[in-house]
Amino acid sequence: MRPFSAIFVPDELSASLSDRAWLEAMLEAERALVEAEARAGLVSEEAVRAVTAALAADRYDIDALAAEGRAPGNPVEPLVRAIRTQVGEPHAADVHRGATSQDILDTAAVLVATRAMRIVDAELASAAEACARLAAEHRGTVMAARTLLQQAVPTTFGYKAAGWLVALVDARRRLGAVELPAQLGGAAGTLGALGDRGAEVLALYAEELGLAEPVVPWHTRRAPFVSLGGALSEAAVAVAKIARDVVLLAQSEVGEVSEGEGGVSSSMPHKRNPAQAVLADACARHARASAALLVECGVHEHERAVGAWHAEWGALNDALAATGGAAAAIARSLGGLRVDAARMRANLGPDLVSEEGSLGSVDVFIDRALALHQA
Amino acid sequence: MRPFSAIFVPDELSASLSDRAWLEAMLEAERALVEAEARAGLVSEEAVRAVTAALAADRYDIDALAAEGRAPGNPVEPLVRAIRTQVGEPHAADVHRGATSQDILDTAAVLVATRAMRIVDAELASAAEACARLAAEHRGTVMAARTLLQQAVPTTFGYKAAGWLVALVDARRRLGAVELPAQLGGAAGTLGALGDRGAEVLALYAEELGLAEPVVPWHTRRAPFVSLGGALSEAAVAVAKIARDVVLLAQSEVGEVSEGEGGVSSSMPHKRNPAQAVLADACARHARASAALLVECGVHEHERAVGAWHAEWGALNDALAATGGAAAAIARSLGGLRVDAARMRANLGPDLVSEEGSLGSVDVFIDRALALHQA
Amino acid sequence: MRPFSAIFVPDELSASLSDRAWLEAMLEAERALVEAEARAGLVSEEAVRAVTAALAADRYDIDALAAEGRAPGNPVEPLVRAIRTQVGEPHAADVHRGATSQDILDTAAVLVATRAMRIVDAELASAAEACARLAAEHRGTVMAARTLLQQAVPTTFGYKAAGWLVALVDARRRLGAVELPAQLGGAAGTLGALGDRGAEVLALYAEELGLAEPVVPWHTRRAPFVSLGGALSEAAVAVAKIARDVVLLAQSEVGEVSEGEGGVSSSMPHKRNPAQAVLADACARHARASAALLVECGVHEHERAVGAWHAEWGALNDALAATGGAAAAIARSLGGLRVDAARMRANLGPDLVSEEGSLGSVDVFIDRALALHQA
Amino acid sequence: MRPFSAIFVPDELSASLSDRAWLEAMLEAERALVEAEARAGLVSEEAVRAVTAALAADRYDIDALAAEGRAPGNPVEPLVRAIRTQVGEPHAADVHRGATSQDILDTAAVLVATRAMRIVDAELASAAEACARLAAEHRGTVMAARTLLQQAVPTTFGYKAAGWLVALVDARRRLGAVELPAQLGGAAGTLGALGDRGAEVLALYAEELGLAEPVVPWHTRRAPFVSLGGALSEAAVAVAKIARDVVLLAQSEVGEVSEGEGGVSSSMPHKRNPAQAVLADACARHARASAALLVECGVHEHERAVGAWHAEWGALNDALAATGGAAAAIARSLGGLRVDAARMRANLGPDLVSEEGSLGSVDVFIDRALALHQA
Repeated sequence: MRPFSAIFVPDELSASLSDRAWLEAMLEAERALVEAEARAGLVSEEAVRAVTAALAADRYDIDALAAEGRAPGNPVEPLVRAIRTQVGEPHAADVHRGATSQDILDTAAVLVATRAMRIVDAELASAAEACARLAAEHRGTVMAARTLLQQAVPTTFGYKAAGWLVALVDARRRLGAVELPAQLGGAAGTLGALGDRGAEVLALYAEELGLAEPVVPWHTRRAPFVSLGGALSEAAVAVAKIARDVVLLAQSEVGEVSEGEGGVSSSMPHKRNPAQAVLADACARHARASAALLVECGVHEHERAVGAWHAEWGALNDALAATGGAAAAIARSLGGLRVDAARMRANLGPDLVSEEGSLGSVDVFIDRALALHQA
Repeated sequence: MRPFSAIFVPDELSASLSDRAWLEAMLEAERALVEAEARAGLVSEEAVRAVTAALAADRYDIDALAAEGRAPGNPVEPLVRAIRTQVGEPHAADVHRGATSQDILDTAAVLVATRAMRIVDAELASAAEACARLAAEHRGTVMAARTLLQQAVPTTFGYKAAGWLVALVDARRRLGAVELPAQLGGAAGTLGALGDRGAEVLALYAEELGLAEPVVPWHTRRAPFVSLGGALSEAAVAVAKIARDVVLLAQSEVGEVSEGEGGVSSSMPHKRNPAQAVLADACARHARASAALLVECGVHEHERAVGAWHAEWGALNDALAATGGAAAAIARSLGGLRVDAARMRANLGPDLVSEEGSLGSVDVFIDRALALHQA
Repeated sequence: MRPFSAIFVPDELSASLSDRAWLEAMLEAERALVEAEARAGLVSEEAVRAVTAALAADRYDIDALAAEGRAPGNPVEPLVRAIRTQVGEPHAADVHRGATSQDILDTAAVLVATRAMRIVDAELASAAEACARLAAEHRGTVMAARTLLQQAVPTTFGYKAAGWLVALVDARRRLGAVELPAQLGGAAGTLGALGDRGAEVLALYAEELGLAEPVVPWHTRRAPFVSLGGALSEAAVAVAKIARDVVLLAQSEVGEVSEGEGGVSSSMPHKRNPAQAVLADACARHARASAALLVECGVHEHERAVGAWHAEWGALNDALAATGGAAAAIARSLGGLRVDAARMRANLGPDLVSEEGSLGSVDVFIDRALALHQA
Repeated sequence: MRPFSAIFVPDELSASLSDRAWLEAMLEAERALVEAEARAGLVSEEAVRAVTAALAADRYDIDALAAEGRAPGNPVEPLVRAIRTQVGEPHAADVHRGATSQDILDTAAVLVATRAMRIVDAELASAAEACARLAAEHRGTVMAARTLLQQAVPTTFGYKAAGWLVALVDARRRLGAVELPAQLGGAAGTLGALGDRGAEVLALYAEELGLAEPVVPWHTRRAPFVSLGGALSEAAVAVAKIARDVVLLAQSEVGEVSEGEGGVSSSMPHKRNPAQAVLADACARHARASAALLVECGVHEHERAVGAWHAEWGALNDALAATGGAAAAIARSLGGLRVDAARMRANLGPDLVSEEGSLGSVDVFIDRALALHQA
């Protein structure tokens, strides 16, 4: 989401997806590996101490790792070499024992994604809270329902917000249900270098990391990331629907809502742009595109893919950054939203005013949405 | 997937997605509506009889409905007019009472998709069964694991098939977890025309159809179809990974598998093309593209979308047809797959032969995969 | 674009993309091949007569060809067998001499696409004509320009239509510049079976078909179709922008335009839905998705792709159908568009009325757009 | 393409797409504007001196601009305020006179893209040069042509390289034909604030920038960027095809090519990974996804889009970075490619050896490809 990514992505989320965050997560995976192998009796406690002492992120030069990663095609190979240099003899060989680059990078991706998802979820929760408040406050605020952007029948603004809410609650549930397990398969998923202790080490490694243990290594079965992509795009769709509605309601000719801190125009100071809803829409577009790329990168050849794996890293980062940016922007938009109930009523066309009594099951549906949110 | 769609899509699946199937599903929605309204005391039993008697699909001209649907932008409007003509007075007005076109079309889409998903799932199950058989039979068939398409370490073909299996089992679970509820919201989601009986009618309507009742109407909250798209693309990815592996293993220079009924070449009779794996790959591409379109169509304006809704129908049809086509093709490929264990062993490079003892945790992982499948 | 594709795609365009049209095009390719080979002295005139006599489309059963095409993975293999049966001895071997399935299918795709593009272009031309008329008629019709859907400064409706026009003119030029050459490469692009006469036969074959001759065969260099996808998506974008604007201007609260034959609602007869603009938007979504799939299918392995080629056929058909559907729908929308100049003026906000004099260079720009159209 | 973007994107290209590069381009647009207005007699020479003196990039804090850009939704609004502060009275009002944020940002995007395209093209040229060399050197190197990854008939490696070459030459032509004009339309495309001098200022502004003058302002007619996206994806497809072929030829069981500086594996030192071809494939995936997003962002509402515009900036950056990364990686791959002619011959299957004489028109086609490249 460059250039000027701070416009789109919250600082905390950007930090959670930075090269530094990835480096720290890779070091954490190496730490968990040596600890797990020690618990399985494959390396000594002394080796654990020697290796873990070398795993401070500050010891490594991120730019150099990236530059040196170009030849092998990934940053783990130079990192492992650098760690081994730091550890020195006799324990250098206890670094990365039995693992492959993808074990470390996939696990790092899972750690990074898991942390970023918490931030994304917090933004979605904040947006949902704002919807719940609007649904409750505007339960009786009558407005025009619009189909194909034509006034159709009366509804309430509370019901509209309740609809937004249900989508956000669903999206949060979906995101919360994504399971990203630890990755450890060795050179080609067999854990061959660990003899008959591979499965045991895998379980201990996952435990060390606080991650789920996979049924089997998933080097080339990318359902975890494909599924994360699906969940992020559902969240992005939920946000984009709210953004679209806010922008439409904020039109000069409609004027039923406005953003608290409306966007300033560089040439027209009289305008009140729904800038945060607009940014939410823009981010949601990036989120959908990156999520689609994650899916497209789900097909991996044999025991390691020739490109699809390498393309995943950036797609994952982008999908998380953009979804979080979308959620944060819509939370800002909704958080300060000014609702003009009088204008909503005044806008009701003649056909709708006469029908105003017939709000049908709107109250029942609002109650259900609020109950779902509180559940 | 035209032209020549029979190459790609099984006949039964095509039929389940045909205009006729959609028409029947729309008529079924109208039937459920009048029955539900009768149970709620809103229409008479006589009206139910009059209406249901008119709902035989043969009474309606599909081509005419499509042609007449161009002006209003959907086929429900002309269909409702045609049904009312068939019903005649005094019960014409009891047709489609309180509903909107989208109620009927969305419900029809759900019915069509639910049935098509069963066929897709059966094809996935057939492919999974073939994988399970291969995993068990070839538990001890040593072959080269290949990373970045370079021979890496030894593995077994059984383990490779077990990996395919896990992905298919996951995909089936994901598809089975998609919930597609009935749709009934009236003109704009409030069920305003049903007074205070809307929520009750919605529940009865869902029951009549054997579908889940939604928390609230979902005219513009498209998570059900977005989520279906996600599930279908996960299935397509699982299939495409198998297809890619089969094609690579079938290469002239590798020759470790071949399809039982290898594709005939129009110019080179000596070739044995892995034609079913190739078709599976092609279908999976369409499935991913249509699923991405479903996501992109998830953002709906206000109470009815200006285009995203209309684009969904075809995207849904295509995603189901292509995923099912992919699953059917890979089931054919795997069902007749000839595995050349001797060639697998002969292909092992010198570095791998010496390592052959180290199959690591392969047997443990195969057992887990088979257990997951049988669960 | 199923179900009910007649809602979206003009009948003539559908026919041009039907299985029958593809069959006829494949037969035309076979005819051109034998004629070219006769001109090169490789087959006798008698053979030409025998072969061409067998190429009437009615002799072939499309459903059977599709069904039989599943095993080899394409419809050409069974078609060639069927033609050879029809031709009988001694000239059966003069059918498809030196060619491969992809030669015939790619050439058929080019013929089909070329004809469909003419229909698409005619619809775009019709829409452009309507824009030009609106630009000229409404040169002086003042309305609000809207940025971020907020009223900004005054503009004219003529200028808005002129902007639509420029995009359509550009799209037509781009589409007209796509070059789809004939395809003939033999088994693997070398024309090896034609000895040293291959390049000569290729030139004659292209001439017979009235198609461009490629620099070299393009079995796995898909720029022609990737580029067509790009051109179609540009056209779809140009149409979708108009559709979006029409829908926004037609909103109940704006009311500045309406479609002549406004969409009828099944539940709200008072509504005037901009149904044709809505359909245009829906079609344009499908067009963009199919065009993106065409690009994604542009990467072909070695001398024939394992899936990307097979997925292209449907993507090509869909992209053409959807772009043409979009163009036809917007042409219908614009053709009957009612422009309410009084409402445009009345809608001008107070800040804009005071600026009304400042229409800047609007007239210059309209003139340029009209000149571009007439060029 | 983060994390570790240096693995994927050449440093020079990254720099050309950095926030700093965008800032400099925005300042360049402001300079051209004031110069053009001075030439049109709308501002004084003194104002030009005062304004241009303030336009040094070092005076502006990029991080602050991005942070302050969140409220208005773009970085131009805070930048214009900052420039005006720098300029001070009496000339502050001569900064950004008559322009809107989008004028400056679009023009900056064009300047940034134009420079980045030069780098991308240089990498494509380098790859093309390598292909031309391979085509000439290996004109007589016989190898198996493979269709559906099955050996089909003999071909030469020179012909394969010639096919790659034609695609690269076409892609460079396509990229070179993209026209990105200057942008200047004022608040809503009318240049209303410049009275009757708008068109004149637009021409001078374009001249100052060395950019093409648009027929009319293109705030919401995004063909220039949609078309750039199309051209970039064609280039990415051309690169990806080469990458796919290199990876397949480099397989252990094929062994016909290897990369000079083969990728090192962190666990298997005996492997020679085709790491640069793999990175090229990964980049090409990102390029296609970003290009598709550019197309999807081509539909803009009224006189400024509510999200599509804002999403374009990142999509444009990503598409350029990824295409350039793909081109650079394949140039590295091809530049050091080791071709094993003996292995190619040895791999020829028995059916192919007997046909070896029949190389058909391969030499003619190689000559045509080389001529096209040299044209």
